[in-house]
Amino acid sequence: MEVKGADSKQVTRREFLAGAGGFAAGAAVGAVLGGGVFNLVPAVQAAEAVPGGPWPYVKLDPEVVRRKGYDYYWQGGCMYGAGRAIIEALREKVGSPYDLFPLDMLRYGAAGIAGWGTICGALNGSCAAINLVTPNADVAKIAGELLGWYTNQPFPSKAHDAYAKFKDQKQSAANSPLCHASVSKWCAASGFKESSAERKDRCAKLTGDVAAKAVELLNAYFDGKFAAAFKPSDATATCMGCHIGPQSSLENSLGKMDCTPCHGDPHRK
Amino acid sequence: MEVKGADSKQVTRREFLAGAGGFAAGAAVGAVLGGGVFNLVPAVQAAEAVPGGPWPYVKLDPEVVRRKGYDYYWQGGCMYGAGRAIIEALREKVGSPYDLFPLDMLRYGAAGIAGWGTICGALNGSCAAINLVTPNADVAKIAGELLGWYTNQPFPSKAHDAYAKFKDQKQSAANSPLCHASVSKWCAASGFKESSAERKDRCAKLTGDVAAKAVELLNAYFDGKFAAAFKPSDATATCMGCHIGPQSSLENSLGKMDCTPCHGDPHRK
Repeated sequence: MEVKGADSKQVTRREFLAGAGGFAAGAAVGAVLGGGVFNLVPAVQAAEAVPGGPWPYVKLDPEVVRRKGYDYYWQGGCMYGAGRAIIEALREKVGSPYDLFPLDMLRYGAAGIAGWGTICGALNGSCAAINLVTPNADVAKIAGELLGWYTNQPFPSKAHDAYAKFKDQKQSAANSPLCHASVSKWCAASGFKESSAERKDRCAKLTGDVAAKAVELLNAYFDGKFAAAFKPSDATATCMGCHIGPQSSLENSLGKMDCTPCHGDPHRK
Repeated sequence: MEVKGADSKQVTRREFLAGAGGFAAGAAVGAVLGGGVFNLVPAVQAAEAVPGGPWPYVKLDPEVVRRKGYDYYWQGGCMYGAGRAIIEALREKVGSPYDLFPLDMLRYGAAGIAGWGTICGALNGSCAAINLVTPNADVAKIAGELLGWYTNQPFPSKAHDAYAKFKDQKQSAANSPLCHASVSKWCAASGFKESSAERKDRCAKLTGDVAAKAVELLNAYFDGKFAAAFKPSDATATCMGCHIGPQSSLENSLGKMDCTPCHGDPHRK
């Protein structure tokens, strides 16, 4: 679907943000979709040389995004797959400005950024897309919830089995948002090598699963029904009591990752 | 500087990529800057509904970017600060399409993504900018080098002392690309709390330092002088020999982070 302006040309991002074109285009989207367009941009913002977010959001079908994530993983890796899945789904429903997004920019996140095994690229790409459509004040709570959900989730889901290369694969939870832990745990659980076709299929499925979950969180948020569910483990909460956050006594660290896989219980030594 | 088309209107990204406008605009930039415009896009690419990278690159002054990174950290955190520093510096020299980039999208990476302490946001934002201007085949080698450099670099540099809130701060190397390790090591080295004004000033400086290094790597790359210097530690190389990469015997993990901080020597137990 293309967003049409009053003159029936596809509106550019600049026109979309500009006052006259902006609200007119927004109204047109609403009319076509039967409502549910969020983030209409006030005209004053169009004066900025660097247009800020959030971009318009319409509720998406998580299953459409799940499939796109799987498919696009094979074209550019996990960050690209997850980010493109959500942004392309929005482009199909909203049109501009999503056609102007430089999707190739999301390739760096593959395998935890350039193969380093840091943040899972499916999380990195999904969080970028969340950020793109969410008011600044609420980005961290939605992105943070996605990371928390990921740490406890058995991947991959079975939802891809109708079209994936391998069916009914072993599932494992990473207990971490890091690619290194996620891949290593799955290799241990499944017995497959990191370079195997099975491991890549697992990560393609995970890419779709994470993007689909991001869309579920966004849909809930724009329905006014978002509620954060993730809580750190009891052991990590104990560590945080002294080390992390403004209520902690030492406050000499930062983060929400589970402490024990790396640190064990350092006070027992 | 704005890139002007033949008709003196600011060219849009679409026009910039389109054949007639594209090469004309590219030639105009070259004329103004005295050459050194990379990534001119052939006309055929303009037909794509989703414009791909790489975006045009001109060599930047690392010191200009270092200062921008420091300043913009205070507006949106480390990922936003580093990404905006590079992308805005390119916008000032190239004009479109950089004025269309949704900079607010980079806020999610603050404090290792939504406070989780995963990838350092200055790395995440700098890698996004590297990806934006680099051909797909070379993104990982430049981004990976930046992560490797970061792990061994004592932060913050003294280069901000003329304008920063605090001068001559304690320096520490993170031995990791993760925010959690980077901040915790600096708190230990300096004695300051995570929420202190001193720690935030340290991360603002680091944001500028990482963005400046990214620009140094990009300048070298587009001069044909890029050479990867990072090598894993001897201990990590030993681990990799069995666990990581196509030459390893088990090949059951993924990553380049130093193994020993989390795993010690598991074979000694």
